[in-house]
Amino acid sequence: MKLCDIGNTNFSFNDAEKFSTEHFDISSINERVYYIAVNHYWEKRLENEENWINLRDFVDFSKYYESMGIDRIMCMEAVNNALVVDVGSAITVDLIRNGHHQGGYIYPGFSAMEKTYKDISPRLEVSLNFDIDLATMPKNTEDAISFGVIAPMVSYIRSLADKLPIIITGGDAEKLHNFLPCARIDEMLVFKGMKKTIDKGVELRS
Amino acid sequence: MKLCDIGNTNFSFNDAEKFSTEHFDISSINERVYYIAVNHYWEKRLENEENWINLRDFVDFSKYYESMGIDRIMCMEAVNNALVVDVGSAITVDLIRNGHHQGGYIYPGFSAMEKTYKDISPRLEVSLNFDIDLATMPKNTEDAISFGVIAPMVSYIRSLADKLPIIITGGDAEKLHNFLPCARIDEMLVFKGMKKTIDKGVELRS
Repeated sequence: MKLCDIGNTNFSFNDAEKFSTEHFDISSINERVYYIAVNHYWEKRLENEENWINLRDFVDFSKYYESMGIDRIMCMEAVNNALVVDVGSAITVDLIRNGHHQGGYIYPGFSAMEKTYKDISPRLEVSLNFDIDLATMPKNTEDAISFGVIAPMVSYIRSLADKLPIIITGGDAEKLHNFLPCARIDEMLVFKGMKKTIDKGVELRS
Repeated sequence: MKLCDIGNTNFSFNDAEKFSTEHFDISSINERVYYIAVNHYWEKRLENEENWINLRDFVDFSKYYESMGIDRIMCMEAVNNALVVDVGSAITVDLIRNGHHQGGYIYPGFSAMEKTYKDISPRLEVSLNFDIDLATMPKNTEDAISFGVIAPMVSYIRSLADKLPIIITGGDAEKLHNFLPCARIDEMLVFKGMKKTIDKGVELRS
């Protein structure tokens, strides 16, 4: 079964293939594709393609809030009890208990944060150090910045998860995993949610 | 005694007067002024003015790290045991025990964070909500962003302070104080450190 997660920059397929949204040729695929899209242009563009099935129409949105991204919703659909951390251009942290979304929050992604410091002052332009020791208070600017981004985030994720498993997904999952070795990385989480949504098989908004 | 904290945008005096760095006329002040400057242009410019005394020459830098801002150092000089949070264009959090700086970290200021979210996606353009309830997981985008900025920061400051007093200073002190009612706001902290430095009266780098 072909699944596709369409973001702002890439078409990502469940066989690990990726294509830029700028150069993607839909005529290259004739089989049925189940997809989600946060990219409004492509969602509109695929509306009349018979073999492209938008999974947005299969989601029970009453379980989520209105403006929540469909990719984030699919990750939620994949789990029953977990704290899910999606580390991409933004970092989303969502709590799911007994299959119910308890809420979540949004933090800027790591590259966005690097840019933020640089924009405040050229003296704060550094690359985040993902080998920093969170047990020692920093005594230089580079570490002070990396610590500022990572320490409060990691500490809060730990306290929020309590005894729930932590699942990390998204392109920068590995970077955060350094600080949360007890967490599980699952790069296929969004596809697992899509698969589960298809298996439920009820078109709720037909 | 006239004290002046020269930032990137303002000359701030201890009598609460403020003047833009762009239009400040040094000939308007004939009395002696003790000052600190993070603004390199003005620090250089005031070097040969006899009545402007740069307190940088009175600081024992061995207690701090090389690239640490002089304004942040003056706040440290003002206290013996405290967690000092300076909420400005950047947010610095510093731990001082028995007059010794234990280290600290740097977080972007609130307006910088608002800009960061907007730059990630127009859908994330919101004004931070400083009345948000940190006891409830957010269920809409605006709260998810405000919570993401504030909840981990506040929770980490609390755990770090442990039993030490928390002192909040800087232009956005009030905003953070909402979430740390046990903390003390001290808008004169930098001037208190400057006064203490003068009273010590030893020119260490003469």
